[in-house]
Amino acid sequence: MTRPHTPILDRVDQPADLKCLSDAELSQLADDVRAEVISAVSETGGHLGSSLGVVELTVALHAVFNAPIDKLVWDVGHQCYPHKILTGRRDRIRTLRQENGLSGFTKRSESNYDPFGAAHSSTSISAALGFAVGRDMGQPTGDAIAVIGDGSISAGMAYEALNNAGAEGRRLFVILNDNEMSIAPPVGAMSSYLSGLYANTPLGLFKDMAEGFEATLPGPLRDGAKRARQLVTAVPSGGTLFEELGFSYIGPIDGHDMGQLLSVLRAAKTRSTGPVLIHCCTTKGKGYKPAENSADKYHGVAKFDVVSGTQHKAKPNAPSYTSVFGNALTFEAQHDNKIVGVTAAMPSGTGINILADALPKRVFDVGIAEQHAVTFAAGMAATGLKPFCAIYSTFLQRGYDQIVHDVALQNLPVRFAIDRAGLVGADGATHAGSFDIAYMANLPNMTVMAASDEAELMHMVRTAAEYDDGPIAFRFPRGEGRGVDMPERGHVIEIGKGRIVREGHDVAILSFGAHLGECLIAAEELEANGVSTTVADARFAKPLDRGLIHQLARHHKALITVEQGAKGGFGAMVLHDLANQGAFDRGLSVRTMTLPDRFIDHASPAAMYVDAGLTAVDIAATAMQAAGVIGKLPHLG
Amino acid sequence: MTRPHTPILDRVDQPADLKCLSDAELSQLADDVRAEVISAVSETGGHLGSSLGVVELTVALHAVFNAPIDKLVWDVGHQCYPHKILTGRRDRIRTLRQENGLSGFTKRSESNYDPFGAAHSSTSISAALGFAVGRDMGQPTGDAIAVIGDGSISAGMAYEALNNAGAEGRRLFVILNDNEMSIAPPVGAMSSYLSGLYANTPLGLFKDMAEGFEATLPGPLRDGAKRARQLVTAVPSGGTLFEELGFSYIGPIDGHDMGQLLSVLRAAKTRSTGPVLIHCCTTKGKGYKPAENSADKYHGVAKFDVVSGTQHKAKPNAPSYTSVFGNALTFEAQHDNKIVGVTAAMPSGTGINILADALPKRVFDVGIAEQHAVTFAAGMAATGLKPFCAIYSTFLQRGYDQIVHDVALQNLPVRFAIDRAGLVGADGATHAGSFDIAYMANLPNMTVMAASDEAELMHMVRTAAEYDDGPIAFRFPRGEGRGVDMPERGHVIEIGKGRIVREGHDVAILSFGAHLGECLIAAEELEANGVSTTVADARFAKPLDRGLIHQLARHHKALITVEQGAKGGFGAMVLHDLANQGAFDRGLSVRTMTLPDRFIDHASPAAMYVDAGLTAVDIAATAMQAAGVIGKLPHLG
Repeated sequence: MTRPHTPILDRVDQPADLKCLSDAELSQLADDVRAEVISAVSETGGHLGSSLGVVELTVALHAVFNAPIDKLVWDVGHQCYPHKILTGRRDRIRTLRQENGLSGFTKRSESNYDPFGAAHSSTSISAALGFAVGRDMGQPTGDAIAVIGDGSISAGMAYEALNNAGAEGRRLFVILNDNEMSIAPPVGAMSSYLSGLYANTPLGLFKDMAEGFEATLPGPLRDGAKRARQLVTAVPSGGTLFEELGFSYIGPIDGHDMGQLLSVLRAAKTRSTGPVLIHCCTTKGKGYKPAENSADKYHGVAKFDVVSGTQHKAKPNAPSYTSVFGNALTFEAQHDNKIVGVTAAMPSGTGINILADALPKRVFDVGIAEQHAVTFAAGMAATGLKPFCAIYSTFLQRGYDQIVHDVALQNLPVRFAIDRAGLVGADGATHAGSFDIAYMANLPNMTVMAASDEAELMHMVRTAAEYDDGPIAFRFPRGEGRGVDMPERGHVIEIGKGRIVREGHDVAILSFGAHLGECLIAAEELEANGVSTTVADARFAKPLDRGLIHQLARHHKALITVEQGAKGGFGAMVLHDLANQGAFDRGLSVRTMTLPDRFIDHASPAAMYVDAGLTAVDIAATAMQAAGVIGKLPHLG
Repeated sequence: MTRPHTPILDRVDQPADLKCLSDAELSQLADDVRAEVISAVSETGGHLGSSLGVVELTVALHAVFNAPIDKLVWDVGHQCYPHKILTGRRDRIRTLRQENGLSGFTKRSESNYDPFGAAHSSTSISAALGFAVGRDMGQPTGDAIAVIGDGSISAGMAYEALNNAGAEGRRLFVILNDNEMSIAPPVGAMSSYLSGLYANTPLGLFKDMAEGFEATLPGPLRDGAKRARQLVTAVPSGGTLFEELGFSYIGPIDGHDMGQLLSVLRAAKTRSTGPVLIHCCTTKGKGYKPAENSADKYHGVAKFDVVSGTQHKAKPNAPSYTSVFGNALTFEAQHDNKIVGVTAAMPSGTGINILADALPKRVFDVGIAEQHAVTFAAGMAATGLKPFCAIYSTFLQRGYDQIVHDVALQNLPVRFAIDRAGLVGADGATHAGSFDIAYMANLPNMTVMAASDEAELMHMVRTAAEYDDGPIAFRFPRGEGRGVDMPERGHVIEIGKGRIVREGHDVAILSFGAHLGECLIAAEELEANGVSTTVADARFAKPLDRGLIHQLARHHKALITVEQGAKGGFGAMVLHDLANQGAFDRGLSVRTMTLPDRFIDHASPAAMYVDAGLTAVDIAATAMQAAGVIGKLPHLG
C-alpha cells in the first residue's frame, strides 16, 4: 500500500511542534493529517467520517492551545484520530481498534493528551467544567476545551452542563462541532434550531465579549459581529439559546477555514474571561469524496480501498441479531397496530430502521436522549400502546433511573430490546454490555430474557409483543447469529421457563444468553474427557426457572452458570435462590462464570472472551474442577 | 382540632363537579382547598409549600380539562395534595404519608386520576408526550398536560423531552410552575433565565398561536400579547428558549389569579394544535403566612400548629447520619484543601450545607442534574481535587451511566456519599435506596462501603478522603444514628477489612451497613434460644473481606448475610465468592437477607422493614432455620 506524501506532518511529533509552523503551513498540515487519516483507516476500519470533519479544527486547537496542560476533551471521542496523529501516536495509528493497538476513542491510560476519555456522548462539557474548577483551585491545569457535536449536545446531560457552566461563569471553551449529523441525521428541535442559526445568522459575537473582543477579529468578521450584536441586544429575550444559558456565543464559523479557526480561537483565548461557545460548522467526511457522498458519511467503516472507497466487509455466515430483531419486530408490528418502536438516535444500529421503512409512523427516534426515551415509552405504555425501546446495553445505562422509577415501579409494559449485550469487539470497554443483566434482574416487576441464538430472539420478540403484564427485557449480542434454522415467525415462550438443550448426567451447564454455543462446545470437550454433560438454556434471569435449576442441581455433580455479563446478574440470582432454598446446606458444587472484575480492552469479541476467561475451554475446565474430575483439556496440558 | 369551613369544597367529590361552578365559585373553591390542605398537613406533615403554591392552578386545570380522560401529569408529584382532594380522595387526605394511607406523591395504583406517578423530578414531559402519542394513535386518551417546576425543568431529562416534543409538534401542554425555588433556591443559568422572563417580559403569546389565539383573550392580555409578539418576531433568533425548542410560549401569567388562569387555559385548550408552554408564576407556601415567611417555604414539614405554624418535631436521640456526614466532611475539608463537595440541588438534605457554611467556595450545587454532577466530579478528580459527590441512593440512579463510563472505567477517585440508603419511610417506594449496593459493587475499580453506625460513618468519610487510588462509595441511611460514642475525628479503615462485633460459635451473621443494630438484637434472641452467635460488620461489599467471610463460613453452622438493599448486592458478592472458592462443595448453610422482590409501600422505616421481612426476629428465625435449630422466637409462637 502506498503511504501518502506528508511533508509537514513528517516534521510533527508533538503539539509543541505546531508552534513553529506558519498559518499557511498549518493549512498544509491539515491536508497531510487528512491524507494520513484516510490511509490509516483504510487499513484498520473505524470512525472515518467524524475524524475527517475535524481535521482543521484539531490542527487549529493544537496550534492555539497548549496541550497537555490545557485540557482538550473530545466528546464521544470517535473523532480523535487527527488528535492522536498529532499527539505522539502517529507511529501506532495503523493499530487503531486492533487488539493491543490504539483505542478508537480517547483514553486516559493511552496518553497524557487524553485528559478525559469518552465513547458515550455528551460528557465533555461536564468534564471540562471540572478541569476549569481544578485550574481555578490551583491544580496544575490550564484551559479546558470541550469539543461536542450537534447530536451530542441534544442529550440532557450536555444541557445540564451548559446550564451549570453558564451559571458558574468560569473561563471555559465549548466548541460546538455542528456537522448537522450524528450517527443518524439528527432529530429534535435542537437540530432545527442549529440549522436555523447556520442558515440565517451572520457570524456573530454577542454580549460579554463585546467591543474589546471584536477589535481582535479580522475586518469582515468584525463587521458581521457588530451587526449581529446590535440586532439582538435591542430586544428583551434576544440572543441565542446558548447566551440565554450564560455563554458568550461566537459563530457560526467555517470549521474548514483555517484562517477563521485560528483567528477566532486566538481571539477567544486572549480575551475571554467566562464560558464561551464557539459554533463551528463542519462537514462529516470532509475531503474524501466517497465519504462526503455517502449517506452515513462513512461514520463507521470497515477496511476500504482508498481510490474507490469500496469497503471490504466480511461476508456474513448468518443474519445479524440486529437484523433478525428488526425484521421480527416489523412482522409483529404488522400484525398488531399497538406496537411502536423507540430509538435514541440509533435507527440502523438497533434495526429499528427496518420497522421505520415499513411503518414510519410507528417509529420514534428521540435523538441522543435515553432518559427521555424510556419514560416516553412508559407514557405510551400507560395508554395501552406496546412500545419496544431498542437501546444498546451500554447506552441503556443512561436510562437506568427511568427504568426503575417510571417503568418497573409502575409495572408498565415497556419492552426493552437490549442489543450489544456482552463484549462487543473493536469499540472496546466503553461499549461493552456488561451490566444490564445485573441492573435489570433485581428490579421488581421486571422480566429479563436473553436470546441464545437468532431463532430464540424471534421467539422473544413475539413473547414480548404478547406479554402485557409488566415490563420485559431481552438481550442479544452484537454480530452474526449462530446460523440456526429460522422459523417463519417466533412463538410465544412460557414466562420463566428454560429448556434443556442437551442431556447428560455428570455436570450441568446452565447458560443464560448467547454463550450457549460456547457451552455446547465445552460439553463436547467434557464428553471427550468422559464427563457426561447436560446443557440448559435458562432463557430467563427473572423469573428464574426454579424447577429447572433445582432439578439440574439435584441430578448432577456440579452446576455451572454461564453468562456474558458481570457479577450480580444471572448467576447471582441463581445463587440467591439456591442458598435460600437450603440447596447448599448438604453440599452442591456450583460455579458462576461471568465477566471478570476488570474492564476488557478492545479486540475481536472472541479475543475479548479469551481475555475474560469465558471460552469453551474455560467452561469445561471449570466444570471439571467443580465436579472433581481430572481431565486433559487442551489448555490444561 | 377544628376543621376549616369549606362550603364549596363540600359540594365537590370529583372533577366533574367543578363544571357546575361559576368562575367566582372556583375562586372560592381554591380558598377552601387551601384551607383543607393546611389543615390536613398540620395533622400528617408533608410537602406543604409546593402544594399551597398550586392550589389555584389545580382548580383551574380540573375546571378546564377533563380528567381522567385528559392526563394530568404532575412532575415530582409532591405538589399533588390539592389534586388528591379534588379527585375523590378528600376522605383519606388525613392519612397522607401514613402507613396504609395515601401516598405523598401521585401514584397510578391509587387513583385513575394519577395517570403517571412520580417522586423523582423531570419525568412529566416525557410521560405526557407518551400520552399524546397514544391519543394520536387511537388509544382512549384525551389531552396530555405536564405540570413541571422551575427546578425540575433544569434537569437534562426535561430538556430532552422538550426537545423531542418540540420536534414532534403534537398537541401537548406543559405548565411551567415557576416558584423560583425547588427544595433549595434553584441554581444554574436556567434559573436566571426564568427570573429574567418573570421580571422583564410582558405577558406574551408568541408565534404559532398568532392572532386567532389572541382574539380569545380578555382585552388587557390581548394587547400585551400583541406587543410582545411584535417585539420579538422582528429579530432572527428572537423568542424564548422554549420557542427555540419548538413550543408556543404563553406567559408569564399569575398562577394565583383564577381569572388569568382560566382564560389562558381555556384559550390554549380551544386553539392550540401543537406543543404549548404556559409559564405560570406561583409562590411556594402561598396563602399561609408561616410558610410564605419561612426560608424553605415549608417544603417538607412535620405536623404543626395551624395558628402558630410551630412544627412538632420529635426530639432526636442521636445525631442524624446526614449531619454526621456533613460535619465530618467539613472537618476533613478544613485539613485538606483539595476536598470539594458536590450536591444536586440538595445542600441541606445531604449535609453539604454544613461544608458550604464553613467553606463556601469548596461547594458546588449543580441543580437537579445528577448526570452532570457525577462527570463534573470526575473532571475535578482528574485534576487532583478530591470531590465528594453527595447524592441520595435513589437519585444517584440518574447518574449511573456516568459512574460506569466516566468514573469507574477511568478509575477516577470520586467519593460517593450515598445518603438515604435502604428504606426511607414516608417518602415511600420511589425514594427507597434499594439498588445502590448492586449497581456499584459489580463495577471494576469501585470500592463500596456501608456505615453500620454514625461513628463508622466518620471513619468512612476520613477513609474516603485519604483514599486516592480510585472511586470509593459509602452508603448510610436516613435518620438518626444509633447513639454510639463518637470520636473527635474518624480514623482510616483498612480497605477491604471488616470487623467482628460479637463472638459466638453456632451461627454467624454478617451485616453490611446500618442493619447491624438489628443483627445484634437478633443475636440476643438467638442466645436466648441457646444459639451462640457471631456478628460481624462487613464494612465493604467491594473488595470483600474474603478472609473474614471464609473464616465465618468455616467455623459456624450457618452464615447469614444481611443488608438494606436488593438482591444482586452484598449477599450476591459473598455467594459468588464462596461458590467459586468451592465453599459450597461440601456443604455450607448460607442465607442472604435482602429487600424482597417487590416495592415496599410507605410507612415508618421500622414498619417498612417489618413488611420487608428484615426485622431482628426475621434474622434470628432465618439463622435458626439455616442452622437446623428449633427455637421459640416470639413470632414463631
